[in-house]
Amino acid sequence: MHPLHKERTHFAPQIPDVLTDLHSVSFSETESVQSKNEKIAQQFPHLHSNPKLRLEKKQTEGRSLIVGVVLSGGQAPGGHNVIAGLFDALQKIDTSSKLIGFTNGPSGILDESAVEITSQLLASYRNTGGFDLIGSGRTKIETEEQLKKALSCVERKKLDGLVVIGGDDSNTNAAVLGEYFAAHGCKTTVVGVPKTIDGDLQNEDVEISFGFDTATKTYSEMIGNIAKDALSAKKYFHFVKLMGRSASHIALECALATQPNLTFISEEVLAKKSSLSDVVKEVAHCVEQRAHMGKNYGIVLIPEGLIEFIPEMKELIASLNALLAEYSAEESVSKLEKSQKATFELLPEGIQKQLLLDRDPHGNVQVSHIATEALLIELTKKELEARNFDGAFSPVNHFFGYEGRAGYPSNFDATYCYSLGYVAALLLRDKKNGYMASLSGLTQPSASWKAVGISIPSLFTFEMRKGKEKAVIKKALVDLEGQPFARFSSQREKWMQEDAYNVPGPIQYFGPKEVTDTVPNIVRLKKT
Amino acid sequence: MHPLHKERTHFAPQIPDVLTDLHSVSFSETESVQSKNEKIAQQFPHLHSNPKLRLEKKQTEGRSLIVGVVLSGGQAPGGHNVIAGLFDALQKIDTSSKLIGFTNGPSGILDESAVEITSQLLASYRNTGGFDLIGSGRTKIETEEQLKKALSCVERKKLDGLVVIGGDDSNTNAAVLGEYFAAHGCKTTVVGVPKTIDGDLQNEDVEISFGFDTATKTYSEMIGNIAKDALSAKKYFHFVKLMGRSASHIALECALATQPNLTFISEEVLAKKSSLSDVVKEVAHCVEQRAHMGKNYGIVLIPEGLIEFIPEMKELIASLNALLAEYSAEESVSKLEKSQKATFELLPEGIQKQLLLDRDPHGNVQVSHIATEALLIELTKKELEARNFDGAFSPVNHFFGYEGRAGYPSNFDATYCYSLGYVAALLLRDKKNGYMASLSGLTQPSASWKAVGISIPSLFTFEMRKGKEKAVIKKALVDLEGQPFARFSSQREKWMQEDAYNVPGPIQYFGPKEVTDTVPNIVRLKKT
Repeated sequence: MHPLHKERTHFAPQIPDVLTDLHSVSFSETESVQSKNEKIAQQFPHLHSNPKLRLEKKQTEGRSLIVGVVLSGGQAPGGHNVIAGLFDALQKIDTSSKLIGFTNGPSGILDESAVEITSQLLASYRNTGGFDLIGSGRTKIETEEQLKKALSCVERKKLDGLVVIGGDDSNTNAAVLGEYFAAHGCKTTVVGVPKTIDGDLQNEDVEISFGFDTATKTYSEMIGNIAKDALSAKKYFHFVKLMGRSASHIALECALATQPNLTFISEEVLAKKSSLSDVVKEVAHCVEQRAHMGKNYGIVLIPEGLIEFIPEMKELIASLNALLAEYSAEESVSKLEKSQKATFELLPEGIQKQLLLDRDPHGNVQVSHIATEALLIELTKKELEARNFDGAFSPVNHFFGYEGRAGYPSNFDATYCYSLGYVAALLLRDKKNGYMASLSGLTQPSASWKAVGISIPSLFTFEMRKGKEKAVIKKALVDLEGQPFARFSSQREKWMQEDAYNVPGPIQYFGPKEVTDTVPNIVRLKKT
Repeated sequence: MHPLHKERTHFAPQIPDVLTDLHSVSFSETESVQSKNEKIAQQFPHLHSNPKLRLEKKQTEGRSLIVGVVLSGGQAPGGHNVIAGLFDALQKIDTSSKLIGFTNGPSGILDESAVEITSQLLASYRNTGGFDLIGSGRTKIETEEQLKKALSCVERKKLDGLVVIGGDDSNTNAAVLGEYFAAHGCKTTVVGVPKTIDGDLQNEDVEISFGFDTATKTYSEMIGNIAKDALSAKKYFHFVKLMGRSASHIALECALATQPNLTFISEEVLAKKSSLSDVVKEVAHCVEQRAHMGKNYGIVLIPEGLIEFIPEMKELIASLNALLAEYSAEESVSKLEKSQKATFELLPEGIQKQLLLDRDPHGNVQVSHIATEALLIELTKKELEARNFDGAFSPVNHFFGYEGRAGYPSNFDATYCYSLGYVAALLLRDKKNGYMASLSGLTQPSASWKAVGISIPSLFTFEMRKGKEKAVIKKALVDLEGQPFARFSSQREKWMQEDAYNVPGPIQYFGPKEVTDTVPNIVRLKKT
C-alpha cells in the first residue's frame, strides 16, 4: 500500500456535533409543503407533499436495518466515504445492521448483483478516491419492467432502505423508485446523496455536491503550475479545457482559485448571445493586449460545455443530429441551410470530422468530445492573421477531466461525504422516503454543520426528454447575478492584463488548517 | 498570497551536516585525474585535469564574494531554492557578499541585464516552483563574439564566480565559459548545477538532476488518479504521453510509482530494434489480453521520445528533414524511398501533416510535437480491426509535461536544491572552476548527504553537432542493465494483467516523513 494511501485510511473525519449521538436525534418536519404542481402530485402521490426535514434533539430507539447502497454515474472523489459513513452510522444505530453494495451501478439492483460491505472490506477504501469498491454504472431504472425488477430485488433482500449516490438524474431516479416502492406497499425507503464533480446539483439547501472540491482543486493545481510555467518560459499560450458538462461551475471555481488571463463562462456566452466569432475575437483581443505589453504568453480556461452555449454551434449540432440520422455525412453537409453551412465551413477540418463522424450510440454528435480548445486555437490563429498580428503566438492545448474524478478526496470532501453517509443512515432509520441527504453551513467548521433532509420532488421541474415531459431536478447553471460570478467579473480585466496567477499547489491532507481545510470559493462567496 | 504559498515560504530545508558551518570546511582534491582524452586537453587546457573534489574539515577564512547566477533552459521545480541556498551561503561566508541574477537566461549575461538578489526579493520565492524570479532562456554562449561579451560582463561586474543552473548542454557551456575566462586571466570561476526534469543528466556522481522528483511525482499523481478512474469506470483505455525528451527516465519512474498496464521504454524499443508495427502489436496484445479477462480499460505510458527510437520512424524523419529543405511537402513525399514511403503511408493523416508542416526554425520536424499517443491509438484501432477484435476499445489520450515543470518543489527537491546552492557557493569561495555542484548519498536523510565537486570536463565525450565534433556531456539514457529497469521488467507482466495500480496522490509537504520525504524510485533502486 502506498504511504499516502496508508495514512489516508487512518484519517478520521470530524463529524458534525449533531451526529455524534445518533440515539439522541431524529428528523422532524420543518414547514409543511403545499404541492406546488399538480403534475408532480399526480406522479408522486406518496412523496409530493414531503416537507423539508431537520435533525432535532429527540431520544430515538435504535433499530436493526438492512440497507442497500448504489453508486450511479461518473466518479467523484468521496464516494467511498459516503459508504463508510453509512456503514459506521448503521453500526452505531444497531450493531446487527447490514449494508450491501449493489455492484456496477443501478444495473446491480436489476441483476441482484451485490456484496456485503464489511468493516474489513471497507478498511482500505476509507478516504480514497474512485468508485472501485463496488463500481458504478449509468443504467437508469425507468421502465415498468425495470421498476418491477428493482421492487422484487429490494423485497427479496428485505431492504429497509436504499441509498442512491448520484447526480441530478440519479436523485430523480431515487424519488421515482421511492414512489414506486411506496405505491406497492414495500417498506423500502429511498434516499439520495448529491454527487457530481460538475457542481450542477446545488440549490438553496444543497450548498455543493460532493467531489466538486477535490476535482477543482486537482485541476487548479495543474492550472496554477502551468500558469507559473507560462510566466517563467514566457513563450506559450495555454488553452485548458475543463470537464464539467453544460454548467461552468468548474471553470468558474478554477478561475477564482488561479486567476488566469481569460476564462469563458458558458452561461455568460449564452446570455450575451455571443457568436463563435465573438468568442474567438475575445481570445484574439487577449493575445493582442498581452503582446502589446511584451507578454507572448498566457492561460485561457474553457468549460467543456462552451460549444453548446454558442447559439450558432448549438443549432448546427442540432441540425447535424437530425440530418445524420437520415443521410450520409456528405449529404448532410450539403443539406444544411445556408447560414449553418457557412458556420460549418468556418470550422477547422478536424472539428468538421468530429461533428460528422464521432457520434454516440443514439446517433448524436458527441459534444463533450469536441476539441473546443483546438478549435479556439485554430480560429484564433486565423483571426490574428486577419488582424496582421505580428507578435508570437505559440498555443498549447490541454484537457483536464479524468485526473480529478478519482483522486483521494480533500479533507473537505472526505468529511462532507462521511457525514452525508450518516445523514442518509438517519433518514432511513427514521423511515423517510424520497429525500436527499444534505448538510448546511459548510463554510463553518464541520462540527457545526447541520443535517437536513431535502424532499426530492420539491426540487422538480418539468423538462422535455426524448419527446416526453419528465419531472427532473433542474441542472444548476452558473448564476450570472450571484456573488461568485460577480467576484470573477470584477477581477477579470486585471487578470487579463497582469500576471496575477495564483498557484494553489497540490491538495494537502496534513498541516495547517488554512491549507488543508478550505471550502470551494463558489460556496464561500455565495455566503457573502 | 495563497495559503500553501505562504506556508512554503516558511519551510526551512534541513541542510547536510557538513554544510552547517561553512568556515570549518573546504573543498579538497580527491584523486588526481589523468586527462583521458587529448582533444579535451587541447580544448580545456585549464580545466581538463581537474580532479573530483570532496568537502573536508578545514578552517577556512570567509571572503566577500560577488557572484552571478543564471537559469538556463526549461523550468524545473527547485530553481528558486538553488538561488536561495546560494544567497544564504554567500551571506554566511561573508555578510558583505553580493549575488546578482542575470535575467531571462544566458542572454542576460550578453546584455548585462541583471538584478541584485536581496533577502527581501527572495522572501516570497523560497520553496516555490517556476523560474520567474529572474527568468530563464535558451541562448547558448558559444561564438567568440558571445564569449568576449560574457568576459566583458563578468569583468565589469567584478564577479568572483558565476553559477549556471541548467541541463547537460548548459553545464557543458559552464565549462566552456570557465575555460575562456581562465584563458583570459579573468578571476571569475564558473560552477554548474544539474537541473532537468528529464533526469538525463545523471552519472556516478550526480545521482539525479533536480526537478525530476517533483515533476515525476506530479505526473504520477495524475497517472494514479486516471488509473483509479479507469478501474472505476471500466470503459476507457488511457494513453498518457510524458515529457522527458529522448530518455525514458520519467516514464520509468512514473511506471514504478503507479504500476500501469503497459509502459514503453524507448531505450528498450531501440535495443530490440522494434518497428512501429511491433510497438502497435504490443499495445493491441495488451488490449486483447485484458479484454479476455473482461477488462476493457487500462493505462499505457508513452515516453515523449519514443518515436525517435523506432528505427524506421527515425529514418523517415531524417529523410523528410533533408527533403523538405529542398522540396515542397508533396514532392518530398514522392521522393521518399519505397520502404520509407510505405511507413509514411501507414501513418494517420494528422500525423502525416505534422511531419510535413510542423517544423522548427531550422526546418526540422518537431519530434516532440508529434502526437505519439494519438498515433498509437489510431494504429491500435486498425490492428485490432485486423485481428477481428470484438471487445470494446475506447481510448483517451493525455499529454503531461508543463504541469510538472513549475510546481512547488517536493521536500526532497526543495532541500536538494537549497543544499546545491550551498555547494555552489563553497566551490566559488574555494576558487574552483569548471565544476558541477553535487551531493551524494541522496537515499539517506539530508543531514548525511556529502558535498562533491565534479569536474565537468571529466564528463565529456565527443559528439557531432551541426557537422562539427563537440565536447559534450553525454545524455544519460535508461540503463537496460540497471536495477530500476530490472525491477520494472520483472513486474510488468503482472501489471499488464492485474490492476496493480498505485495511487501516489498529490505531493505532501506536511505530515509523516514516509509521505513527505521520499526519493525517486530510480535513485533508490540504483543503490540496491
